Amino acid sequence: MTVYKETISLQSHGQRPTFIDITTQVKETIAKSNIRNGICTVISPHTTCAVFFEEFVHDRDENGDEFLQTDLNNVLKKIIPDNTAQGQYNYPGEKHYQEVESWPEAEFYLPGGDRDALLNCDAHLKATLIGSSQIFDVEEGTLGVGTTGYIYFVDFDRARPRTRKCKIIIMGE
Amino acid sequence: MTVYKETISLQSHGQRPTFIDITTQVKETIAKSNIRNGICTVISPHTTCAVFFEEFVHDRDENGDEFLQTDLNNVLKKIIPDNTAQGQYNYPGEKHYQEVESWPEAEFYLPGGDRDALLNCDAHLKATLIGSSQIFDVEEGTLGVGTTGYIYFVDFDRARPRTRKCKIIIMGE
Amino acid sequence: MTVYKETISLQSHGQRPTFIDITTQVKETIAKSNIRNGICTVISPHTTCAVFFEEFVHDRDENGDEFLQTDLNNVLKKIIPDNTAQGQYNYPGEKHYQEVESWPEAEFYLPGGDRDALLNCDAHLKATLIGSSQIFDVEEGTLGVGTTGYIYFVDFDRARPRTRKCKIIIMGE
Repeated sequence: MTVYKETISLQSHGQRPTFIDITTQVKETIAKSNIRNGICTVISPHTTCAVFFEEFVHDRDENGDEFLQTDLNNVLKKIIPDNTAQGQYNYPGEKHYQEVESWPEAEFYLPGGDRDALLNCDAHLKATLIGSSQIFDVEEGTLGVGTTGYIYFVDFDRARPRTRKCKIIIMGE
Repeated sequence: MTVYKETISLQSHGQRPTFIDITTQVKETIAKSNIRNGICTVISPHTTCAVFFEEFVHDRDENGDEFLQTDLNNVLKKIIPDNTAQGQYNYPGEKHYQEVESWPEAEFYLPGGDRDALLNCDAHLKATLIGSSQIFDVEEGTLGVGTTGYIYFVDFDRARPRTRKCKIIIMGE
Repeated sequence: MTVYKETISLQSHGQRPTFIDITTQVKETIAKSNIRNGICTVISPHTTCAVFFEEFVHDRDENGDEFLQTDLNNVLKKIIPDNTAQGQYNYPGEKHYQEVESWPEAEFYLPGGDRDALLNCDAHLKATLIGSSQIFDVEEGTLGVGTTGYIYFVDFDRARPRTRKCKIIIMGE
């Protein structure tokens, strides 16, 4: 029984949730692992990002998002509206702002000192609902999903483009 | 450390979400694995199905669904209404229809060419919210849950009865 | 490859959902395991509790809950209102009441025979949405999350204070 890991780097675009199809990278990681039989865990180490399993859709909206992603956004927005103003949610609070303002990298999180740049409460709550990890089957050295099943990494943070990490861990024999 | 797997076959009934109590099959798989100490992963390889952990309820509604299943359906319907008409959601889109119509097995997905048979956007989104995998404890060769905890496989697709697969993977020593 | 487990005991306060930051316990368990490379699974064996990954927030509301917890409660309440009266949800039903009333420990669940003490349907449904397990990366003997990421155990059951268990399982080499 062995463990094989890769950390992939992903680029989000900001403005709206960023959905990234990582199925190919997961399949490549399984192939490189030489593990024939076991499990594949996909993990977001970021608290505004999530991992989920969904059908690939050929139709895309005007932003380039697949239709099931647009529909997911619409459903989530109904219960967790975009965080566009201070006071809309409790988070971020005064201590949180002061904490971030004290960081050496404060300018990255609050460009020009603009506190609105931290309005991402909706992203935190959406990521909690969808979940930060998902497990898949590795059978005969391949990803054990049907032909229409794909793995997506989503960055719900609309505040700015970010470079994100996603961890792929294969365990088995 | 070893890996032991079983793929079980489950029958959905269509019309409404199909909830299947798979606790007995999970316990039997743990027993057959001879693994005393480790984890048990339960995975849906279908994008309209999910796995969750819930209390078993003796009361059932007029359809035979346990009361917590009826209540879950009611809550999910409020935010993700049943997909009953084209245009209600973005999915399924024109390219998706054309893709499925080009498949050799198109008649299975679109009986008589009726495009309404693909109206299952709600099932995709509900499955994404609940999640396609869940992990349980294996301790002393048994499923490490309390006496009231059960494992359910749910097929949210109401379009037609289907034969589904569920993967049970035990890893440990 | 080895397996290392700990079951931690947690105290809920009732009245409202109890959120418990278990990040320190998870990190200590990883340290004790001597596993350098693998996965860490965190599991709730209770059907009204869940596990999730979220940012730690310095601001707290009047109850002592972190702001993202208050916001999560508000969002979940909108779709799953607190279960405060019989008949509000299908659950709990007559057979469920009779079952619990037949248990030797019935007085614990229904103090003084008050059936309202079982009104926790909302807790069951919220736990199903959030999920009973989550997996994390173990890299170089430490928990592989960023500096702002924390692990929370939540008991959604408001009915009474309870002692709960949470399982932490490390697997790897």
